[in-house]
Amino acid sequence: MTDPGQWMAREMAEQPDVLARLVTRWEDDVARVAALLADVPVGVAFAARGSSDNAAQLGRYAVEVWGGVPGLLMAPSLLTRYDSHPRYSGYLVVALSQSGETPEIVTVAEAARVAGAVTVAVTNGPGSPLSTAADLTLPLEAGRELAVPATKTVTSSMLAVLTIAAAVARRAGRPEPIPPSALTALPGAVDRVLADPEPVQELAARWAGRERLQVAGRGLAYGAVLETALKVRETSGVFAQGLSVADLLHGPVAALDPQVPVVLVDPGGPGAGDVHAVESRLTAAGSDTSRWAADTAVGLPGGLPEPLATITATVRGQQLARAWALAVGHDPDRPAGLSKVTVTR
Amino acid sequence: MTDPGQWMAREMAEQPDVLARLVTRWEDDVARVAALLADVPVGVAFAARGSSDNAAQLGRYAVEVWGGVPGLLMAPSLLTRYDSHPRYSGYLVVALSQSGETPEIVTVAEAARVAGAVTVAVTNGPGSPLSTAADLTLPLEAGRELAVPATKTVTSSMLAVLTIAAAVARRAGRPEPIPPSALTALPGAVDRVLADPEPVQELAARWAGRERLQVAGRGLAYGAVLETALKVRETSGVFAQGLSVADLLHGPVAALDPQVPVVLVDPGGPGAGDVHAVESRLTAAGSDTSRWAADTAVGLPGGLPEPLATITATVRGQQLARAWALAVGHDPDRPAGLSKVTVTR
Repeated sequence: MTDPGQWMAREMAEQPDVLARLVTRWEDDVARVAALLADVPVGVAFAARGSSDNAAQLGRYAVEVWGGVPGLLMAPSLLTRYDSHPRYSGYLVVALSQSGETPEIVTVAEAARVAGAVTVAVTNGPGSPLSTAADLTLPLEAGRELAVPATKTVTSSMLAVLTIAAAVARRAGRPEPIPPSALTALPGAVDRVLADPEPVQELAARWAGRERLQVAGRGLAYGAVLETALKVRETSGVFAQGLSVADLLHGPVAALDPQVPVVLVDPGGPGAGDVHAVESRLTAAGSDTSRWAADTAVGLPGGLPEPLATITATVRGQQLARAWALAVGHDPDRPAGLSKVTVTR
Repeated sequence: MTDPGQWMAREMAEQPDVLARLVTRWEDDVARVAALLADVPVGVAFAARGSSDNAAQLGRYAVEVWGGVPGLLMAPSLLTRYDSHPRYSGYLVVALSQSGETPEIVTVAEAARVAGAVTVAVTNGPGSPLSTAADLTLPLEAGRELAVPATKTVTSSMLAVLTIAAAVARRAGRPEPIPPSALTALPGAVDRVLADPEPVQELAARWAGRERLQVAGRGLAYGAVLETALKVRETSGVFAQGLSVADLLHGPVAALDPQVPVVLVDPGGPGAGDVHAVESRLTAAGSDTSRWAADTAVGLPGGLPEPLATITATVRGQQLARAWALAVGHDPDRPAGLSKVTVTR
């Protein structure tokens, strides 16, 4: 018998070490991916499901901002259900699966390679079918993940897709997007978030009776927004929903019941002003709003560039999901009915 | 003083006529867009917000299934907030805005053209800035839309993006994706849905006390899923969320509180089996589930190909949004705090 949520806590605590390994590999990994690209790709397509898809979201934005290359999230069902075989000539296709065994992601990676793409796998399963299917693998080296809610494989996938975006930027002759000093600061920043769980535990205690949660943010933070909503939802059963701040402003903000608490993910960057504007509107309407930023109660470590601060915000989301599940009497390690590998095809 | 929801009802009722005009123009519009394409595009990128983005979702899938070309939804904030200027050489960029005045969509269309894309505008504002910015415009000719929740401009945008996908298929030398007889059947099918509001009114009456709604579906139906969730949310204030059936299975289905009612959008097609599987799981767990299909209580007209049946499902979603708003005492025409043109930049 184990304490509820102890596996999830242990795996969350491993994140600084897992990230530190990827930081050490950063230059080699960027060089390996860049060498694989015969030319600047015409597009970078990401194939993933669930939490990996939220990591992909960060990659999809980073390839565009850093590399100047359009990014897209693939819809695996178009291949597996509609037998669609688009041309991927000139594309880089990045397939993510923590196990490397999600059948539809393996199928998509294989088909993309046949359709002309250069393919890179991001996986914690180095000898997995996905790794075999791809031209090159960035292994997460995160160790076994036993808790059902993925944590260390998600934040490491986020750093891996940033590695790939940096490789695209290099291939395009653009400047290095992240200074080495910022990269080496990341593991310590995640450690500081992990050492400071109280603000999020207070949130979870305050919100434990609520059945809905809105999470919002903009730009590079959007992957952390979606991941926080998904993690809270699958771990605690709360009906959590992630939206971009722009989409929230475009409609649902006016209809938002003040009984719905709101998390605003604000890792700095050029979208911060939009987040502040939404916060003012929500606060005026009586919503209970928690903004996660360098200068707020649920703090993010300061001084990191936005994409890396987004990873620390994702850890805040894991803390909220775990604390909320415990507050409502769920075992975060084993949410009802979930299994580690989902076999949607 | 007007009856609550009468504008929305009137504009919903105009949809058969609006769609009939686009059906009449179908062949000309396909030919115009195909003629604009010097070659098969390397990708088709859609720029939109809100309901238009949900219409774009249908287009993004159709270009891939019909045309064999990767489709993507652009993130306007990457340009407007991060000043990212990706290369769009070889791309077709489709920009949608009912007013044609959404500043960020106009900005994205202008930038994409400069970056090498062929650009097509889909708008109800023929002399609008968006129309001026694009190489070619498919006007919706839907007449003025006075109710804040967009209806006729959404279903007509859906048909317009299918027109564009058919043009990409033609340019790629692929078979015509939709038989003319199916197209001419569409306005009558929408008329039959509009003439049969009772099943959805019963749903709205049954669910009026609920504060959450899950909408799910797969493949080409996904745009209708997101649009139904958004329309219910902005019109009635219910915390509605759209998910693909695959993503629902990948996690949140197990955590779904049986108190959350579920709409399953099932316009036929190869994803139908997945929808049935989810329905069985949800029913076994005690969820109140309403599947919208050709053979169910909330019926969709039979005999239409999936992409067109998706448009009829979108009309079902409008009916639910309007009926739910009325059931909880909101005026569907004027949801609190929403305006017709949102000026996110």
